[in-house]
Amino acid sequence: MPTESAMNGGIGTESYAKNSRYQGGAVETAKEIITEGINKNLDIEKLSSTSVDTFRIADFGCSTGPNTFIAIQTIVEAVRKKFETELSDSRVPEFQVFFNDRTSNDFNTLFASLPPERKYYAAGVPGSFYERQFPKDSLHFAHSSCTLNWLSVMPQEILDNSSPAWNQGKIMYSGEKKEVLNAYALQYAKDLDSFFKARAQELVCGGLMALVVPTVPNPNHDLSSITFPSYDLLGTCLIELAERGRFDAAKVDSFNLPVYYTYPNELKAIIEKNQDFRIERIEVLNIPSKHHTNPDPKAYSLTQRAVFEGLLQEHFGSEFMDELFDLYTEKIEETAVLLNPKETSMVTFVLLKRVFRMT
Amino acid sequence: MPTESAMNGGIGTESYAKNSRYQGGAVETAKEIITEGINKNLDIEKLSSTSVDTFRIADFGCSTGPNTFIAIQTIVEAVRKKFETELSDSRVPEFQVFFNDRTSNDFNTLFASLPPERKYYAAGVPGSFYERQFPKDSLHFAHSSCTLNWLSVMPQEILDNSSPAWNQGKIMYSGEKKEVLNAYALQYAKDLDSFFKARAQELVCGGLMALVVPTVPNPNHDLSSITFPSYDLLGTCLIELAERGRFDAAKVDSFNLPVYYTYPNELKAIIEKNQDFRIERIEVLNIPSKHHTNPDPKAYSLTQRAVFEGLLQEHFGSEFMDELFDLYTEKIEETAVLLNPKETSMVTFVLLKRVFRMT
Repeated sequence: MPTESAMNGGIGTESYAKNSRYQGGAVETAKEIITEGINKNLDIEKLSSTSVDTFRIADFGCSTGPNTFIAIQTIVEAVRKKFETELSDSRVPEFQVFFNDRTSNDFNTLFASLPPERKYYAAGVPGSFYERQFPKDSLHFAHSSCTLNWLSVMPQEILDNSSPAWNQGKIMYSGEKKEVLNAYALQYAKDLDSFFKARAQELVCGGLMALVVPTVPNPNHDLSSITFPSYDLLGTCLIELAERGRFDAAKVDSFNLPVYYTYPNELKAIIEKNQDFRIERIEVLNIPSKHHTNPDPKAYSLTQRAVFEGLLQEHFGSEFMDELFDLYTEKIEETAVLLNPKETSMVTFVLLKRVFRMT
Repeated sequence: MPTESAMNGGIGTESYAKNSRYQGGAVETAKEIITEGINKNLDIEKLSSTSVDTFRIADFGCSTGPNTFIAIQTIVEAVRKKFETELSDSRVPEFQVFFNDRTSNDFNTLFASLPPERKYYAAGVPGSFYERQFPKDSLHFAHSSCTLNWLSVMPQEILDNSSPAWNQGKIMYSGEKKEVLNAYALQYAKDLDSFFKARAQELVCGGLMALVVPTVPNPNHDLSSITFPSYDLLGTCLIELAERGRFDAAKVDSFNLPVYYTYPNELKAIIEKNQDFRIERIEVLNIPSKHHTNPDPKAYSLTQRAVFEGLLQEHFGSEFMDELFDLYTEKIEETAVLLNPKETSMVTFVLLKRVFRMT
């Protein structure tokens, strides 16, 4: 079953719009590096020789804002400035920006919150970014932030109780159980390959793609150190709800978070396998601590709720969500899991250029 | 105040999606004539010499479907066939379709009901079609059906009790009171001028525009015969609600339907004033009677509710809507207004070509 759920819609207490400060931190931090990347790597002479009247930008996995608007603003401003400086004011193209996310994303909220002073034409594009969403050679810049950790689908063996990769009683992979980790990693590589193949068709030659990818650090020797205590804790809460009789324990066995955190070396290898893109820059972003995983249990719980509630609701039913996240908040507090140095989330920035292909 | 309300969203009993059969009749009837128009008037040799890789279509005032999907399907198929026949299969471009409507339109419902088998890339574009919504020269075909009867704003004098155009106790113009009619007509001409000016920028030279415009017949001698008994009846219901103490009678004075029904000769004159477009065809559509104004009072009342409820709610409050439309259904029955030959709604089809301008 493909994972069809989107971030929480609307602008209420549990919405993604109100609980995406961490993701916002990544966007803030990437601003400068994106501007630099455009200055250095966007070849507007070449682009404008193919008569670019409209410069088209897409944000893949935009959710409901406001982070997407900040990222887009950065890109538009940097491109505009480059045209003004290197060509002339009169050669600045018009901008058309496409906000892409799954069909279940709350586009109504996104559209209602479009910045009124924007200097671009806006459009929403519903559909999975693991497939083609745009005509051939129709984009000049692609962006995606904090989205390339979502699997398009859960690998079947994870749910198969006869498979060594069956992830019983857990909702996330870890380095402890290699078969599970491998199944996740394989699916991830497949998904990213689809992503890059689709974007290679959509981007013009010379077009740029800026990705902010949620990652873990490069593992030292083996992968057994990989662990996600805060997700495991959410799994524990689900098991406790099953014990309280809210649903069958088997429901927890059949639920897994469809997210995978790659690490810089693996990400690099996946990109290099696809020969349509050249890596112009890859580096781990240093997100200032004010944006970091909020050590306040309630706030952290809300952040996770905004991201995962749709998915959890679909599987367990919406009636248990308050109880689940209340319990989760409690357990975060009890276990002090957020202070656990074992869990290191970070983001990796990649700037890619669509290169000419012979085939 | 600009009129910001959209058709009723969702897919429930009172939704536009479920109550737009009449508008659907217009789309069905226009199918053949649009296909003919594309065959005869779309100069693909010229378009493809300017290297059209992507053929871009926009539907202005798309609402939530399904009518918009039928219209778009017709256009895509006709253009595809023309490329196949006149050039070759391999020269058929990819299609990108933009669904435009006001920001308050229910785009979530629209996106969820996109035909899965569609052969085009879809995007939603929120914003008033009386303003620019697309980059310069970025569209090859524009379509709009049953939308060019909405005023962008109510003319001030209609609401001004010191003006001869004050429309006291009425919610719609009629030929009886010339000042009111003139104020509506003037605003309409201004709005259409804005519409054509915006589209002239957005369409490439040689691009086509197909419009299905709600109209009344050309008046014979003077305009005094123009009357809308079914809207007047809705006004009577509002007055009755005021008498029941639901709201102040002055609320009815300050409410007017922001719709104007032009007539073919007037429409032609407005278009001809704008020199960016050439009229390739203009004719009154003969909508088969099965699609006509439904003589069933309940169904007719629902159709009007799907269209006007947003607007009425905003002005009178949502708590009176059931009462209002129940009363309306009753009164339609009592007065047999739908059988009144005085009210003749019809639609006029116009096919325009964007011509080359010297300025």
